[in-house]
Amino acid sequence: YNVVLLPGDGVGPEVTSAARSVLSVIGDFYGHVFNFSEHLIGGAAIDATGDPLPDATREACLAADAVFLGAVGGPKWDGGKRRPEEGLLAIRKAMGLFANLRPLQVSPVLAHRSPLKKEIVEGVDLIVFRELTGGVYFGKKTRDEKGATDLCEYTVVEIERVARAAFQTAQQRRGKVTSVDKANVMETSRLWREVVTRIHAEEYPEITLEHALVDSMAMHLIRKPREYDVILTENMFGDILSDEISVLGGSIGLLPSASLGTEGPGLFEPIHGSAPDIAGQDLANPIGGILSAALLLRHSLKLEDEADAIEGAVAAVLASGAVTADLGGELGTRAAADAVMDALR
Amino acid sequence: YNVVLLPGDGVGPEVTSAARSVLSVIGDFYGHVFNFSEHLIGGAAIDATGDPLPDATREACLAADAVFLGAVGGPKWDGGKRRPEEGLLAIRKAMGLFANLRPLQVSPVLAHRSPLKKEIVEGVDLIVFRELTGGVYFGKKTRDEKGATDLCEYTVVEIERVARAAFQTAQQRRGKVTSVDKANVMETSRLWREVVTRIHAEEYPEITLEHALVDSMAMHLIRKPREYDVILTENMFGDILSDEISVLGGSIGLLPSASLGTEGPGLFEPIHGSAPDIAGQDLANPIGGILSAALLLRHSLKLEDEADAIEGAVAAVLASGAVTADLGGELGTRAAADAVMDALR
Ligand SMILES: CC(C)[C@H](C(=O)O)[C@@H](O)C(=O)O
Ligand SMILES: CC(C)[C@H](C(=O)O)[C@@H](O)C(=O)O
Repeated sequence: YNVVLLPGDGVGPEVTSAARSVLSVIGDFYGHVFNFSEHLIGGAAIDATGDPLPDATREACLAADAVFLGAVGGPKWDGGKRRPEEGLLAIRKAMGLFANLRPLQVSPVLAHRSPLKKEIVEGVDLIVFRELTGGVYFGKKTRDEKGATDLCEYTVVEIERVARAAFQTAQQRRGKVTSVDKANVMETSRLWREVVTRIHAEEYPEITLEHALVDSMAMHLIRKPREYDVILTENMFGDILSDEISVLGGSIGLLPSASLGTEGPGLFEPIHGSAPDIAGQDLANPIGGILSAALLLRHSLKLEDEADAIEGAVAAVLASGAVTADLGGELGTRAAADAVMDALR
Repeated sequence: YNVVLLPGDGVGPEVTSAARSVLSVIGDFYGHVFNFSEHLIGGAAIDATGDPLPDATREACLAADAVFLGAVGGPKWDGGKRRPEEGLLAIRKAMGLFANLRPLQVSPVLAHRSPLKKEIVEGVDLIVFRELTGGVYFGKKTRDEKGATDLCEYTVVEIERVARAAFQTAQQRRGKVTSVDKANVMETSRLWREVVTRIHAEEYPEITLEHALVDSMAMHLIRKPREYDVILTENMFGDILSDEISVLGGSIGLLPSASLGTEGPGLFEPIHGSAPDIAGQDLANPIGGILSAALLLRHSLKLEDEADAIEGAVAAVLASGAVTADLGGELGTRAAADAVMDALR
């Protein structure tokens, strides 16, 4: 299996190295050969080449079986001509990654670390499907001396494909999809609601579908997060809501994500970002990266048992209390990754 | 003083009636005469006239000293030719209400009812300044067989005026402004950040200004809400974030808002919305409406003592435990309003 690693910026290299080590242990154990190749993206790529997504990186990603990304961005590149984030947006577009999946399960052993009351977050088990190649992210932008504009665009086809992905996942789960929009204000949201409603009626009538406005959803996710199963939404709302709920489980450092297209390799990354304040100090929580490696095995390489093994090892390690500082523990990044590898062995 | 009342839909008429009664008691006590006139807006206006903002309502609002709004919207008008929300958006635009203020103080006696831990929410005292006449709300919308678009627009002038309002309020408070944008993706956000930074440097250098991305802000507001003083943001982000934090104090039914222009009357409304499921049953919490009446006295009529009196009475009633069902109490809408009037007397 050819796996491209994009360490990127900030804590990205540290968590990428942790994920790579865990994948190597899986390879030894199950008899797979992973060919890892590292490429530049984001600020690191700007520093080396001037381009946040060099051609070599793009080509390697398109030719790979799967791509692992650490993180991009940091204050170092503020105000520069090119922004690290451009690299991330460009690779999402180039690989056709239209569905960003963010699963969230609140571990019973960590529920007490949530800013929310234990009785509200215990048992939360949901997954966000965020559309990733449309919306205000890729629409035309203008700027003149008077002001600026951003265009938010959605096509029927873009909404259909991510809706199908969400409904299919709901079939494997508790059978409920909550679609989030701002249909009382936005035309793209009215289209979103119509298309999701039609795909549901025509193709997935056995799934329970409900619609929510993004502003009320921002409340409901804090008041009753246990009620949700699959949450389906457009790019920007998904960005905001999935970050909002990332605090429910006690630390954003625990959370993985998968970005998938119709075919071709997926891209897998922890959602914590580059965290420049703690970069290079062996302080980052490697679990979000390690669980992203599990999603890589499951979704791109179809190695379900191997993915389950990693998730089981992580659960055991969290239960044992061997955790990093963000969770009140004393382990560094490497020691926390070692704990997972020991549990795997 | 000419005060226009727009009861609107759902629980709107009940909370408007509560606010009106409280204002009458204030009038008797301080020797003011309030001339109240009721006008149609939203779904109620669609039913009566076909138009969510009839001309008569618009004219009355523009000629008033202040406007009180109950709530608009409800499933009854879903799929209709005109939407109740159009009336609200149109009156904001017609009155030039560019700054929507949402103060949030978590009452120590109610902190235990928050979905967040008491130690996180106790002492929260912040105010959101949401820009109200720009962004994706009023930009051009298109729709064809392939897809849809919404244009997000901001002018320099629109950003300057709401930024000044936020900095001026910070001068009266703890001297800190957190400006929220998505400058790593949106051109309007990059403009927003530049203009806010310039106004700060040129006119309010003594205020502490920080910038945050909307996605991280959605997290921070749950993890450390006490750190914020004045939060300044554009229309859509303000809609989402202010609803998110509305749950911090235990019930959205408690929260007021003020929408202000450069001059002319302001518009004051509770933020809870029309709540059609409990409409007409004497179940709605009247406190958000009553505190909106206090903001009306303070901001539009410049009656500071009178506003303080209402806020003091509300605090006393909440402390006494005389509350509605959303706060675990047994009072109906009218009885809860009566409790405030008794405390005032
Ligand atoms: C870095 C940024 C452009 C990105 C986004 O907004 O999509 C990030 O917040 C994310 O969620 O992956
Ligand atoms: C009803 C709706 C159009 C409105 C908005 O989005 O502005 C509401 O959510 C609000 O916050 O006042």
